[in-house]
Amino acid sequence: MKTDMTRYLPILTWGRAYNSSALSNDLVAALIVTIMLIPQSLAYALLAGLPPEAGLYASIAPIMLYAVFGTSRALAVGPVAVVSLMTAAALNNIVEQGTMGYAVAALSLAALSGVILLAMGLFRLGFVANFLSHPVIAGFITASGIIIAASQLKHILGIDGEGHNLLELVISITRHIAETNWITAIIGILATAFLFWVRKGLKPLLQRIGISAGLVGVLVKTGPVAVVVATTFAVWVLGLADKGVKIVGEVPQSLPPMTLPSFSPQLLGQLLLPAFLISIIGFVESISVAQTLAAKKRQRIDPDQELIGLGAANIGASLTGGFPVTGGFSRSVVNFDAGAETPAAGAFTAVGLAIAALALTPLIYFLPKATLAATIIVAVLSLVDFSILKRSWDYSKADFSAVFGTIIITLAMGVEAGVSAGVGLSILLHLYKSSKPHIAEVGQVPGTEHYRNILRHDVITDPNIVSLRVDESLYFANARYMEDKIHNRVAGEKNIRHVILQCSAINDIDLSALESLETINERLREMDVQLHLSEVKGPVMDRLKRAHFLSELTGQVFLSQFDAARALQMTSDEEPASPIVAT
Amino acid sequence: MKTDMTRYLPILTWGRAYNSSALSNDLVAALIVTIMLIPQSLAYALLAGLPPEAGLYASIAPIMLYAVFGTSRALAVGPVAVVSLMTAAALNNIVEQGTMGYAVAALSLAALSGVILLAMGLFRLGFVANFLSHPVIAGFITASGIIIAASQLKHILGIDGEGHNLLELVISITRHIAETNWITAIIGILATAFLFWVRKGLKPLLQRIGISAGLVGVLVKTGPVAVVVATTFAVWVLGLADKGVKIVGEVPQSLPPMTLPSFSPQLLGQLLLPAFLISIIGFVESISVAQTLAAKKRQRIDPDQELIGLGAANIGASLTGGFPVTGGFSRSVVNFDAGAETPAAGAFTAVGLAIAALALTPLIYFLPKATLAATIIVAVLSLVDFSILKRSWDYSKADFSAVFGTIIITLAMGVEAGVSAGVGLSILLHLYKSSKPHIAEVGQVPGTEHYRNILRHDVITDPNIVSLRVDESLYFANARYMEDKIHNRVAGEKNIRHVILQCSAINDIDLSALESLETINERLREMDVQLHLSEVKGPVMDRLKRAHFLSELTGQVFLSQFDAARALQMTSDEEPASPIVAT
Repeated sequence: MKTDMTRYLPILTWGRAYNSSALSNDLVAALIVTIMLIPQSLAYALLAGLPPEAGLYASIAPIMLYAVFGTSRALAVGPVAVVSLMTAAALNNIVEQGTMGYAVAALSLAALSGVILLAMGLFRLGFVANFLSHPVIAGFITASGIIIAASQLKHILGIDGEGHNLLELVISITRHIAETNWITAIIGILATAFLFWVRKGLKPLLQRIGISAGLVGVLVKTGPVAVVVATTFAVWVLGLADKGVKIVGEVPQSLPPMTLPSFSPQLLGQLLLPAFLISIIGFVESISVAQTLAAKKRQRIDPDQELIGLGAANIGASLTGGFPVTGGFSRSVVNFDAGAETPAAGAFTAVGLAIAALALTPLIYFLPKATLAATIIVAVLSLVDFSILKRSWDYSKADFSAVFGTIIITLAMGVEAGVSAGVGLSILLHLYKSSKPHIAEVGQVPGTEHYRNILRHDVITDPNIVSLRVDESLYFANARYMEDKIHNRVAGEKNIRHVILQCSAINDIDLSALESLETINERLREMDVQLHLSEVKGPVMDRLKRAHFLSELTGQVFLSQFDAARALQMTSDEEPASPIVAT
Repeated sequence: MKTDMTRYLPILTWGRAYNSSALSNDLVAALIVTIMLIPQSLAYALLAGLPPEAGLYASIAPIMLYAVFGTSRALAVGPVAVVSLMTAAALNNIVEQGTMGYAVAALSLAALSGVILLAMGLFRLGFVANFLSHPVIAGFITASGIIIAASQLKHILGIDGEGHNLLELVISITRHIAETNWITAIIGILATAFLFWVRKGLKPLLQRIGISAGLVGVLVKTGPVAVVVATTFAVWVLGLADKGVKIVGEVPQSLPPMTLPSFSPQLLGQLLLPAFLISIIGFVESISVAQTLAAKKRQRIDPDQELIGLGAANIGASLTGGFPVTGGFSRSVVNFDAGAETPAAGAFTAVGLAIAALALTPLIYFLPKATLAATIIVAVLSLVDFSILKRSWDYSKADFSAVFGTIIITLAMGVEAGVSAGVGLSILLHLYKSSKPHIAEVGQVPGTEHYRNILRHDVITDPNIVSLRVDESLYFANARYMEDKIHNRVAGEKNIRHVILQCSAINDIDLSALESLETINERLREMDVQLHLSEVKGPVMDRLKRAHFLSELTGQVFLSQFDAARALQMTSDEEPASPIVAT
């Protein structure tokens, strides 16, 4: 009972050992993360199509709940770029942006996503996320980053423009480009340029003057705060809002409100697939960050408990005016680098953000939306990385096809189609590969007990014996392929008496493959050829013993390929074996 | 060029060697098959919801075309039970049975199916059929047999009743049962009983009096002809058609007509999925029969050319008043047993059926539909075989789940849902199994160079070294699982210095798994643990060499697990290894 409690409530483990040293470290980390999160939260709310305060609200309760249920010591939960984009894509199909229904639908999406994550955690279904292959994720994130950056161009230029894929965005922006507000554009371009310089120019500068790498990382992350302060001040002093620069405007001074998502069955039905995709993408992003940070301190992450933590965080978001959240990469790294020791740092961050929501919102009245767009563009362009195309091309054409398909479909058709196509493609390519396994005909390496591919090595073979090694587990998708291969190898040659199947690479044989083996055995019997097996693995042999196959087998099961070949060469005395060296 | 011609036109191969002995054998076989096919063709047309003559037409041109393009010497192509049922299921959703549009839609379905098969053959996509696992096919055929038998009950009882799954059929028949025509019912029940006796009683009887097995098989297959003759005669003489017995009625005396399928895009769109499923199911049924018969004579079957042959046959059916066809089990076996030597036997059968269509149709005017229903019921009940449930239960629960799901969904929701669910289920179960591979921690068997599972054997281990063997190829679905397993094994224990991954069972490593290995390597480095590989297979090593992984690996790659353990025990001198025996 007690172990169960600590499993589902990791806070009981670290809470008990909490002390003043951890407290001070956590407080410092929380302060830094809070400063960094204020502009980021506002910006991601904008990306999700929601009012800016929703971004703050979405960072408060979720962080608290994750601190109670999550297993990572350093993960910081809140709105992140890709999930915010997916939120906008899901909601724009259903309700009009800016309406009350839109905000309520965002709550429903968070609630649904929370329930899905929680259920996956409780039923230990975290493995579902494994079907998102690494290259597909890399391609998806890259394509999403491009779409996000493109979607922010309208704020940079101060024009209208809608779209959920690159095509729509390009068309829409081209149509409105003449309406560009030049003051907005100057603010947006300067802000973007400054933030790029902070990353590319300031960072090496600070490193050169001898500031520690961790501190440099933290300082660089506060760049957005500087831009926010500077541009807000400029807009206020110069009265630019009257000249058409779009600003954030009035933001309620309030703690996160108590909210209730809509449970309309029609709405939930429409949101189910997007919520599932958001949950999976969010989980994969979060768990990768958590694992990476935990490894640095030999800490353990429990993926199923992580699902519960993220599920609780999303349900919390849905009850406090937020939208779907997950563990974010940049905020977690800052938290870790700033010295956070326990999830209490997250709780303190939440307090900091609550104070901001309550007291600081009047200060961002004049904050230009172009500034927020600039912070988003600079953040997401660091996600864009086409090197995965070259890596996968060099390593495996199947992986390359999956990445390429994912990128193209995401750009052309949007995030939901892209991630679904990526998963589908990688499963199909995997099945295709394993449906045509490598089958090598093997012969004896002279003077040894080793058997190798006759096409690669000079080996000894016997004209009466065909030895084949299948380099794959046998299952329905490759069972008939193997039938055909063996049948075709034997059908033409009258002097073949024995076929030996070397099973050293076979980890499993399913019922289809078993029936194929029975068919092969039967067909070979009709041709007066015996079928033998060698080097069958223990678990496979256990399973074969449960079926009739072994009693029907015309030949024998040998411990090693060498034993098999030697025994069969001795018995085939009617037509003495004359070993020849294959060329 | 010449080899290409003989590949795509197998007739050039066997036609050149044709002689008078083959001719007389083929003629005898053709005569027997023709007699058997007449009632069967009429019955399957009825099952497909088409006029009886369509069954004859569907057997003429397709047989001829298969003779030219197919690779099997004995396969007989025409309407078969399961494909006829699937045809009815596909068409009834779209057009009303008995209308002109229904017959035209059947032509479109055959044309579409022909084009799909042809395309699969030309692009060598025959492997797609491999995703229908044996157990799923067995379950599907069994459930289809039950549905077909149930759908014929209305003809046996002379009542109305519609439905495409068992539920609908049972409800519909129950509703109409009071309208039973008793004369029809007597004919139907007697015919069914007689045909069962021919199979179960006459067959052993003939065998006991010393008639050869092949001839017995042929004689038993002519049972339906006897029933057709007897019941037609009875209905005519006793004037039963006036007492409500439904008869075949007027059938045009004609060679197969020239027809053109509808190419309405809407219709083709609706028929695309059913046509695809019919193509796959038909191909799987046909190729299994062809392979089985070919094996008996050491002949080769080319699956891709078979697709072309079946595609041509279906296109032929669509142009001559037919409906979707494939290679049938019973007719092919009769053809083979009757001594057919070449596809010319099929061509002669086509001539026989053409004569029947031209001259004999007036003779079946009084043939009761109940008789045709009886021949269908007896034919399909031999397909029903629930032993697959026990077999799969004994062998593997995953296979059992796939079979059980297929049977239940086919019975409850119809053939299209059933076969789709079967394929989906078996793929999901396969992916699930391989996503949680068996990972064994291994130790040295004392006095040998062998390394075995520490849980199964008394082996020697070293507290500084963890040796793990993954019994599965590494790919995206199990990459993160392996990451977690290794991380969790090492995270807690401070004295682990080396992890050795024994790769003897790894046939492939995809890019996701490679990145997971890089992640593992990196995380272990953070914990001051070295990662080593042993027994990496040649092709896997070739691929690893194309990536950076080997240069980043903190440890070494060893030829054998024994070499690895010995080398690492010697180097870890700071804390001398004290081998212990695991319990």
